[in-house]
Amino acid sequence: MSHPAAHVPAAQVSDAARTMLESDTASATLGIDVTRAVDGEAVAAMRITEHMVNGHGIAHGGYLFLLADTTFAAACNSHGPVTVASGAEISFVTSVRLGDELVAEAVERTRYGRNGIYDVTVHRETGAGREVVAEFRGRSRTVGQITS
Amino acid sequence: MSHPAAHVPAAQVSDAARTMLESDTASATLGIDVTRAVDGEAVAAMRITEHMVNGHGIAHGGYLFLLADTTFAAACNSHGPVTVASGAEISFVTSVRLGDELVAEAVERTRYGRNGIYDVTVHRETGAGREVVAEFRGRSRTVGQITS
Amino acid sequence: MSHPAAHVPAAQVSDAARTMLESDTASATLGIDVTRAVDGEAVAAMRITEHMVNGHGIAHGGYLFLLADTTFAAACNSHGPVTVASGAEISFVTSVRLGDELVAEAVERTRYGRNGIYDVTVHRETGAGREVVAEFRGRSRTVGQITS
Amino acid sequence: MSHPAAHVPAAQVSDAARTMLESDTASATLGIDVTRAVDGEAVAAMRITEHMVNGHGIAHGGYLFLLADTTFAAACNSHGPVTVASGAEISFVTSVRLGDELVAEAVERTRYGRNGIYDVTVHRETGAGREVVAEFRGRSRTVGQITS
Repeated sequence: MSHPAAHVPAAQVSDAARTMLESDTASATLGIDVTRAVDGEAVAAMRITEHMVNGHGIAHGGYLFLLADTTFAAACNSHGPVTVASGAEISFVTSVRLGDELVAEAVERTRYGRNGIYDVTVHRETGAGREVVAEFRGRSRTVGQITS
Repeated sequence: MSHPAAHVPAAQVSDAARTMLESDTASATLGIDVTRAVDGEAVAAMRITEHMVNGHGIAHGGYLFLLADTTFAAACNSHGPVTVASGAEISFVTSVRLGDELVAEAVERTRYGRNGIYDVTVHRETGAGREVVAEFRGRSRTVGQITS
Repeated sequence: MSHPAAHVPAAQVSDAARTMLESDTASATLGIDVTRAVDGEAVAAMRITEHMVNGHGIAHGGYLFLLADTTFAAACNSHGPVTVASGAEISFVTSVRLGDELVAEAVERTRYGRNGIYDVTVHRETGAGREVVAEFRGRSRTVGQITS
Repeated sequence: MSHPAAHVPAAQVSDAARTMLESDTASATLGIDVTRAVDGEAVAAMRITEHMVNGHGIAHGGYLFLLADTTFAAACNSHGPVTVASGAEISFVTSVRLGDELVAEAVERTRYGRNGIYDVTVHRETGAGREVVAEFRGRSRTVGQITS
């Protein structure tokens, strides 16, 4: 296997989310570090590398989407049944630059039937505190067995 | 410079779009090939590589977003003034696998003031023809000088 | 029955769409006139009345949504099986005033499984032609029997 | 003036929001009662009347949008400068029926430059508590003077 598994700390990540994340080599390649994924919530971090920026040092918005989407996937899979993204909306608040340390936090807004809505805020860590750089809302659909 | 510039053929790409694309090393790294970017329209192609998939060979949705977003950027910058994405909506229609050849087509839906709305359909090329894999709608904002 | 049924002309409306529209007293109350609903497409018109505007004569955006949503419902129900809106996105392009004559046109973008995506453009008829006032994208879900 | 002004209680509504609401005859006609609009937050209630439902007693989704959009407008105008909706996204969670008492709550998610993002949850009051019926995210744009 050519890709390392995503780094997942022992605590604060449910077994179901861990299973999903360990196979998510795409996120691991990007250096996304999921530090929490339980009870419909998740937290992940990513550093903007030179592969993610244009010639002016500004990050491609798609990489903010990738971080938010991964955090959303960790949150909606934390419950157990396999759940996929059916769609998402993102608003870009400010531009992000090479070297920025980003943290994304996902919370579950509501679940109904096999559907769910999750909000993810992406922050940039700065010396003066956190600054919002993107707001994301994901729509999930559970495709695996629902046992509850 | 560590990244190659995006491959841009001589014809069918406006000077403004070319300038934007030539600095877009992030898209070039992904192997995105923009073949058209004029008059508010754009076409781009990308092949799903092993860096984009999980352990089951399914592509991360974020890479479909990246392709659609790049095509959108090429379309909205084809007019000249520097234009950025203010937000986007994506619906995932079906899953995409390692080796799939994707083509994204962006069309301008409307422009008003400094704002624009662009629709991007992402297809998978199959032996039987094209199959839609994602529908994307991007919102743009012109930040550069509008001279017209 | 206190509400009149929506006015539906004999031609260009499928039987399934007609059944849906004839029970849609809410749209009829607003004066929405659906003139076409076949093959996943629909056209509807509405005049902005004084009930829809604020004290400055500007229409509440929610009424543009209502017109677009009704046109979307006519389009996605034109195929036969009962289909509902699962969600929608709207961008407001320009403000609309008392007396404006609006026309909404819905087209089907894609269908997959029980899901569909429909785009609706809302225009204002002016002496100089049509002007876009809102762009809407609806997501549908078929809840009735799919027989095809 | 043919329409009554929206009912606005003395407390918990900022002067700016009050000015906006008093001219919002469209919302008043629908029986929307804004009970709070300060500091970027707002609360409003509406009862589903027979004008809002189809022949089967199910409310038109557009009326849920209207309630959410009005609550969003109250929240984003609570700060002072005149602010308009530039767009919105709504997910319909469950159907709503004649006689249902709905309550919408808007919170500000973020503001940047002249832009803002507000989330509105629409609940139905039931004997057993509150049930989410729709989730709405609005994008605002300030058009008036920003003095802060």
